[in-house]
Amino acid sequence: MSQRIDRTEHDLLGDKQVPADAYYGVHTLRAMENFPITGTSIAIYPDLINALAAIKQAAAQANNQLGLLDSQRADAIVRACEEIRAGRLHNAFVVDVIQGGAGTSTNMNANEVIANRALELLGHAKGDYQHLDPCEHVNMSQSTNDVYPTALKLAAYTSIFRLADALTILRRAFEAKAVEFRDVLKMGRTQLQDAVPMTLGQEFSTYAVMLSEDVERLKEAALLLREINLGTTAIGTGTNAHPEYAARACGQLYEVSGIPVMIAPNLIEATQDCGAFVQLSGVLKRVAVKLSKICNDLRLLSSGPRAGFGEINLPSRLAGSSIMPGKVNPVIPEVVNQIAFEVIGNDMTITFAAEAGQLQLNAFEPIIAHSLFKSINHLRQGCQTLTEHCVLGITANREHLRANVENSIGIATALNPHIGHASAAEVASAAIASGRRVAEIVLERGLMSAEELTELLRPEVLTQPRLIQPTKIEDWCSALV
Amino acid sequence: MSQRIDRTEHDLLGDKQVPADAYYGVHTLRAMENFPITGTSIAIYPDLINALAAIKQAAAQANNQLGLLDSQRADAIVRACEEIRAGRLHNAFVVDVIQGGAGTSTNMNANEVIANRALELLGHAKGDYQHLDPCEHVNMSQSTNDVYPTALKLAAYTSIFRLADALTILRRAFEAKAVEFRDVLKMGRTQLQDAVPMTLGQEFSTYAVMLSEDVERLKEAALLLREINLGTTAIGTGTNAHPEYAARACGQLYEVSGIPVMIAPNLIEATQDCGAFVQLSGVLKRVAVKLSKICNDLRLLSSGPRAGFGEINLPSRLAGSSIMPGKVNPVIPEVVNQIAFEVIGNDMTITFAAEAGQLQLNAFEPIIAHSLFKSINHLRQGCQTLTEHCVLGITANREHLRANVENSIGIATALNPHIGHASAAEVASAAIASGRRVAEIVLERGLMSAEELTELLRPEVLTQPRLIQPTKIEDWCSALV
Amino acid sequence: MSQRIDRTEHDLLGDKQVPADAYYGVHTLRAMENFPITGTSIAIYPDLINALAAIKQAAAQANNQLGLLDSQRADAIVRACEEIRAGRLHNAFVVDVIQGGAGTSTNMNANEVIANRALELLGHAKGDYQHLDPCEHVNMSQSTNDVYPTALKLAAYTSIFRLADALTILRRAFEAKAVEFRDVLKMGRTQLQDAVPMTLGQEFSTYAVMLSEDVERLKEAALLLREINLGTTAIGTGTNAHPEYAARACGQLYEVSGIPVMIAPNLIEATQDCGAFVQLSGVLKRVAVKLSKICNDLRLLSSGPRAGFGEINLPSRLAGSSIMPGKVNPVIPEVVNQIAFEVIGNDMTITFAAEAGQLQLNAFEPIIAHSLFKSINHLRQGCQTLTEHCVLGITANREHLRANVENSIGIATALNPHIGHASAAEVASAAIASGRRVAEIVLERGLMSAEELTELLRPEVLTQPRLIQPTKIEDWCSALV
Amino acid sequence: MSQRIDRTEHDLLGDKQVPADAYYGVHTLRAMENFPITGTSIAIYPDLINALAAIKQAAAQANNQLGLLDSQRADAIVRACEEIRAGRLHNAFVVDVIQGGAGTSTNMNANEVIANRALELLGHAKGDYQHLDPCEHVNMSQSTNDVYPTALKLAAYTSIFRLADALTILRRAFEAKAVEFRDVLKMGRTQLQDAVPMTLGQEFSTYAVMLSEDVERLKEAALLLREINLGTTAIGTGTNAHPEYAARACGQLYEVSGIPVMIAPNLIEATQDCGAFVQLSGVLKRVAVKLSKICNDLRLLSSGPRAGFGEINLPSRLAGSSIMPGKVNPVIPEVVNQIAFEVIGNDMTITFAAEAGQLQLNAFEPIIAHSLFKSINHLRQGCQTLTEHCVLGITANREHLRANVENSIGIATALNPHIGHASAAEVASAAIASGRRVAEIVLERGLMSAEELTELLRPEVLTQPRLIQPTKIEDWCSALV
Repeated sequence: MSQRIDRTEHDLLGDKQVPADAYYGVHTLRAMENFPITGTSIAIYPDLINALAAIKQAAAQANNQLGLLDSQRADAIVRACEEIRAGRLHNAFVVDVIQGGAGTSTNMNANEVIANRALELLGHAKGDYQHLDPCEHVNMSQSTNDVYPTALKLAAYTSIFRLADALTILRRAFEAKAVEFRDVLKMGRTQLQDAVPMTLGQEFSTYAVMLSEDVERLKEAALLLREINLGTTAIGTGTNAHPEYAARACGQLYEVSGIPVMIAPNLIEATQDCGAFVQLSGVLKRVAVKLSKICNDLRLLSSGPRAGFGEINLPSRLAGSSIMPGKVNPVIPEVVNQIAFEVIGNDMTITFAAEAGQLQLNAFEPIIAHSLFKSINHLRQGCQTLTEHCVLGITANREHLRANVENSIGIATALNPHIGHASAAEVASAAIASGRRVAEIVLERGLMSAEELTELLRPEVLTQPRLIQPTKIEDWCSALV
Repeated sequence: MSQRIDRTEHDLLGDKQVPADAYYGVHTLRAMENFPITGTSIAIYPDLINALAAIKQAAAQANNQLGLLDSQRADAIVRACEEIRAGRLHNAFVVDVIQGGAGTSTNMNANEVIANRALELLGHAKGDYQHLDPCEHVNMSQSTNDVYPTALKLAAYTSIFRLADALTILRRAFEAKAVEFRDVLKMGRTQLQDAVPMTLGQEFSTYAVMLSEDVERLKEAALLLREINLGTTAIGTGTNAHPEYAARACGQLYEVSGIPVMIAPNLIEATQDCGAFVQLSGVLKRVAVKLSKICNDLRLLSSGPRAGFGEINLPSRLAGSSIMPGKVNPVIPEVVNQIAFEVIGNDMTITFAAEAGQLQLNAFEPIIAHSLFKSINHLRQGCQTLTEHCVLGITANREHLRANVENSIGIATALNPHIGHASAAEVASAAIASGRRVAEIVLERGLMSAEELTELLRPEVLTQPRLIQPTKIEDWCSALV
Repeated sequence: MSQRIDRTEHDLLGDKQVPADAYYGVHTLRAMENFPITGTSIAIYPDLINALAAIKQAAAQANNQLGLLDSQRADAIVRACEEIRAGRLHNAFVVDVIQGGAGTSTNMNANEVIANRALELLGHAKGDYQHLDPCEHVNMSQSTNDVYPTALKLAAYTSIFRLADALTILRRAFEAKAVEFRDVLKMGRTQLQDAVPMTLGQEFSTYAVMLSEDVERLKEAALLLREINLGTTAIGTGTNAHPEYAARACGQLYEVSGIPVMIAPNLIEATQDCGAFVQLSGVLKRVAVKLSKICNDLRLLSSGPRAGFGEINLPSRLAGSSIMPGKVNPVIPEVVNQIAFEVIGNDMTITFAAEAGQLQLNAFEPIIAHSLFKSINHLRQGCQTLTEHCVLGITANREHLRANVENSIGIATALNPHIGHASAAEVASAAIASGRRVAEIVLERGLMSAEELTELLRPEVLTQPRLIQPTKIEDWCSALV
Repeated sequence: MSQRIDRTEHDLLGDKQVPADAYYGVHTLRAMENFPITGTSIAIYPDLINALAAIKQAAAQANNQLGLLDSQRADAIVRACEEIRAGRLHNAFVVDVIQGGAGTSTNMNANEVIANRALELLGHAKGDYQHLDPCEHVNMSQSTNDVYPTALKLAAYTSIFRLADALTILRRAFEAKAVEFRDVLKMGRTQLQDAVPMTLGQEFSTYAVMLSEDVERLKEAALLLREINLGTTAIGTGTNAHPEYAARACGQLYEVSGIPVMIAPNLIEATQDCGAFVQLSGVLKRVAVKLSKICNDLRLLSSGPRAGFGEINLPSRLAGSSIMPGKVNPVIPEVVNQIAFEVIGNDMTITFAAEAGQLQLNAFEPIIAHSLFKSINHLRQGCQTLTEHCVLGITANREHLRANVENSIGIATALNPHIGHASAAEVASAAIASGRRVAEIVLERGLMSAEELTELLRPEVLTQPRLIQPTKIEDWCSALV
């Protein structure tokens, strides 16, 4: 059996054994002991790890340009960061997603992993920090208080655009269905009560429009994330940072990440303020509310198959029941509903954490980050499964939908300009009283011919504005009494 | 024109003119200037005003017994409090429902109104505080920090039992409907998909059971409110209070209010802790969630009338539309849904306010009180309108409900013990493929007689556990493919 | 005694007595009976009443232009609306702020008040609807489903700009204080622990910046409200509306209200979608979070006066305690905290209500409206009282603040470039161990002269980025152990 | 290279390849494809896996007793379940924590793992379901709709008691500190302003009392979880279940799990109702609010070390800053605050999911379960780290605390019974005006001797109720002006 050999590291609290092959170091280890909360490490958020590496790379380059960091160390740091950004070493990011300390442990985890990898690249042993130190060199000119919020913003920015893509693909799926169902006549409903006719295509087009607006709002909120506080050091006064550092680091970061970041006009404000995260989470909640509403509708429209609305069919994705034959449940919309509920809860967590920030720093950004990334990622996964496993395969029960329209009282409204409102009201009244169809009664009474009725029931006639005589509700009243 | 004459009052901040006929005084006036937030005064919560008066009365009696307050003043205070508890002078409680200062302004409003009324009863002019002082005499041995939380608990206790009564009346309405609909067969649904038969009576009985449990939970939460912190003075150490005051005041308060209050074992804890309010609000949220779920169901079951579930009819309460004849909307369940949403929001407000309490006091109890009383009162009003204007008038579309059962695939499940699962699966499969009824196919194939089928479709047979052969899902599968 | 004489009105549900002098009619009366929830009528939102009147006026003008409504009736309606918009008849808007029916009762309340006032202007009796009918004429070409959401948007738009003004005034108050305190040196803090020096002016400037950003975000959200669904009728298909009506009514509404409204591109989507309200509420929540954070800071910085931070003094607004002499409590920030908690709760209510919308309409817009208007109005009132009664009167305890800086360990950081990091670390270590001041030790050890120290402690030196030697944490470690 | 060989399984949707060595089967695989949401499987909740195994074991035993399941199969199922309950095979529970389908996928995952392990025990190959079928035998007499909620209740019950243990240990830590600090005099504060003296022991005792109450409330809420709906099958009517099954399965489950479960009186209600989860989450929120409040206090009391309250010292757990020497941050309370914020968000998610339940089933129980288990587990971990890494190591700055008391104005209140209120007020006034100490002035004016003052400042005198003369606020006023 192999013998595990540890190395000794040292910090303010004393000596500590670190596994010899670990890229992380003593600060990370202490964080693992202090915060054994969820069992899930920050490695589940690759965008965050990559953002940290991009910032450390940019900082090393800026420090090198300013003559603060020699080229050999800077190069090693840059190479280590590039490896991380290529997806390597992510499993060395082991601190818990929920942690105290305003992100210090995440920042130190990054500093240590980068330092140890850079040491290796320079031919030194891990932990041999006299050659290249996590704090002194990797974290040079930095502070958790600027690195961490900046990393969150970069990661959120990247993730948001990925979510926007997933939403766009979902929107297109609804648009395709809107076209497919453009001539499928159905009853529109308000307050769950039969109202007036529309097409199923019109109904699906509304979902596309909603999502399209959401994508716009998301992108607007994402743009606010570009304003960063790099160079802030402790509280935004820039204590102990080179006066040119902020501008240079920001420029480098733009180059490294491709994201057009800019320095906030007031660094002290930018260091303590979580407004951009609250705003973004608010927009994610908006997206969640819309998706949930859409999924509620899909579940309602596909309810049945026989004792429900029965208007559309969702693709069958799971055997629904062992004792009820043929039961197909709307499991995909259901999972999206649940994601939406989670996002709304996450927004509440973010709101609480943002409000609790005190004076020059918000110490609770780790839970803001965790909640935000969960919301973004789960929404994206939800959009994908909704598109692929549900929306694209939806079919319409055209005959049933049309029968509902013909069977409705609401259609009497449309007869108004043809037979006069008094006759229309009488017909409606007779239909309600007898449970019969409006058309039957119209034909029976010779008010219109079958051809005229057919013409009238064409979707393009029924579902657009037309000029008719104003109707007096009193007439409906007396007719219906 | 009449000349309005003011009187001059004085406090720490200086002199101030008070309207001559006002029962309130300078402290109240300052509160009105400081907190012009909602325009709604605490007088909208009579239970709170009465609770304040009960506490002041109990305190005066206790102080008198302890020899701290002479009988003449004590009697005048008691009489003023009794008038208030009889519903008089409530309009003199003018401070805003949202106010800073941990309830000080509410307490001072009470002190001033009681003092001025007591002065009148003693033959003095309002504002002539040398004879009887709001702070020195009415507030004797007290502090906002014990009076205000105690008043909130008393008021909430009283209100909760009123709400419990309204819930009980609603529960009985559902029970009556459960009896009325006990033999109305219908399809049960899971995940909005047709499942197996049940009775409409069973469905309505679940609502009664839910409400019954809620009433139990509410009462449990209310009992926690009986633990008060009277005698605490500033922070619970009882500084400057007579050692026997707390016990005597508490005893008097029991006598005056009829509520079996008891002194908290740790007064310092009791003074800062809002746990009982958070717990109570959590239970109110539970009630709201249940009511909202019930109203969602009612709206769904009454959807249509023709293109929806159409199972039940809610009473018509408003003309639904000027352009859609005969449209009746579920306006009563809708208003209850909205109350539920408000209660859930109020719970969030209460949670925030409770969490924000610091050290020896929670300064945010006024918003806790306002949110709690809104939740309780609106829920009570919602229950009443739901009972009277909706549930009691619900009717069932029995024929349609029964037709749905007979038309369902789910009924094939019930044939299992009679015709074997292989035959049942084949019948189900044929019904799904053809869109025809299960019964039709059974009769056509001679698997059962019409009499046997009729017997089988009796509610008491379909909706209770019966012994049948276990079914192998694989058979259903192959039959359905 | 005077005899109250009623008039009889009629609707779908039958005849009903209406008070003879009431401007409202039978539909309003039924709403009052159905929804006795809060006891507060929609008249508390004048912006909403005015918006309804503006829409009815615009509709009458459009209908008249299209030849659907004769000029005599149109003129009477317009005059009635103008009276309402001038602030009259608001007390005739009596329906409850919480109501079922998707706003139908609010719309009908407006229709009836306008009709009855117009009838009076035409020389007819109230209730004499044969001459001018609430539904037929006042509501012509309209539906609750377009009038109500449009009114909410107009009212919210107007209110938001009023709130933005209040926020701007508050921002300016903080800016003035930032200037006043620009040379007041103090310790900055992160995680409530002493960090590095800053100025009190810098601290106050962050509040100004936050509010300034919030105003921008609010205005962006308000712009989304301009997209309305006028002309939608029932569900957005425009059934029974004149094809030119929407465009004309929208144009008229712009003219009447001065708000550059525009017709939504997809009316069906616009009719069911509450995204703009959810977004706006999310931004209001952001504002609330910021204001609450600011007020938390103000309360913390003014804590004491002797056993707390004691950095600033808030104006005294209320006598704080009857038993604790001289106690002044931060009652104004406290009330703003509570408003913030309410706004966060309101956002939750709005989220729930928006998510619950089904198919072609959201039936829960009344609670959305109520929650939104509460948030906007209370925030505005809170900003005003915070500006006038608190921020403008804040003073600084300059000596105490400066002493804190001089007494801090953090100041050792600033010595770094002058005495070298090794010496600085030793000094810090000695200061921590002995409880003495850093400066004392520096002078004692002859590391700097008193003049040099004085120069170093100038705010402009301490609170800006400066070039210093990178510090090795290991040195601090060993020095401090 | 090794060749991975799959087996073929079949369900309603067709054939599918399953990895040959997988204990799960086709239904699980479909769930993995449908719900790739979080990447976290239900195996992170061992209590849930164990609860599922206990239920399956109890069901097999009940079915065997009723003659529905032969002993050979029953024994194999029981053995497989016992292995799982011993902690084995948990890694075969692979479905996502967020899933559609009301828990069907979790139930099927359990059925398949148990079936395949039982097949192995019987000497058959995995997937050879003709000998023992996941649906037919493992799920016999069951339905997701009774198994899943029952499993959630069992798992929550077990977890809650574990959390209660952690809270109790934390409570004891506070109690120990309350004893340790029982004679440490300090200023009490209300609204962050100096109030009257108390002991630090009193302050810490309040935390113990709060937690003690929370444990009681948690246990009460847990008891509600014992009511289960086993035997319900699809919707609670017990369709196709043996009439004696429910009672027997429940009895067996009690025996297997040791939890005194009982059958709900109304199974239809019990199947759809999530009230117990909402209530439990509400109580968890209460716990979170308390813990957060306590942690806020700890952070505030330890603020400084020099420019803050500086009353207590938290143990140093992490190097706080690389640029600020000696900075120790309150990272443990901070992580508990964040857990609290998460729990509050989870409660919102649960509320939404519970409200969204429709008709005979709540389809959203998976997100309820996930949110609930997160809350319980994270709170437990938070309590442990707070106890071990923070509370037990807290020390008091006794001298500073006492100096604060002696330096306070509040102490003048205590002089009242000794020197009369007029003198006391004058002294207070002089102290405020001059910034000097109350005691200094008292001695200077010869109002009391040094010995008398010392006696007065003993904690037991200052922090208990004492009889004093009522004070007239007017006197304070005039004294202070």
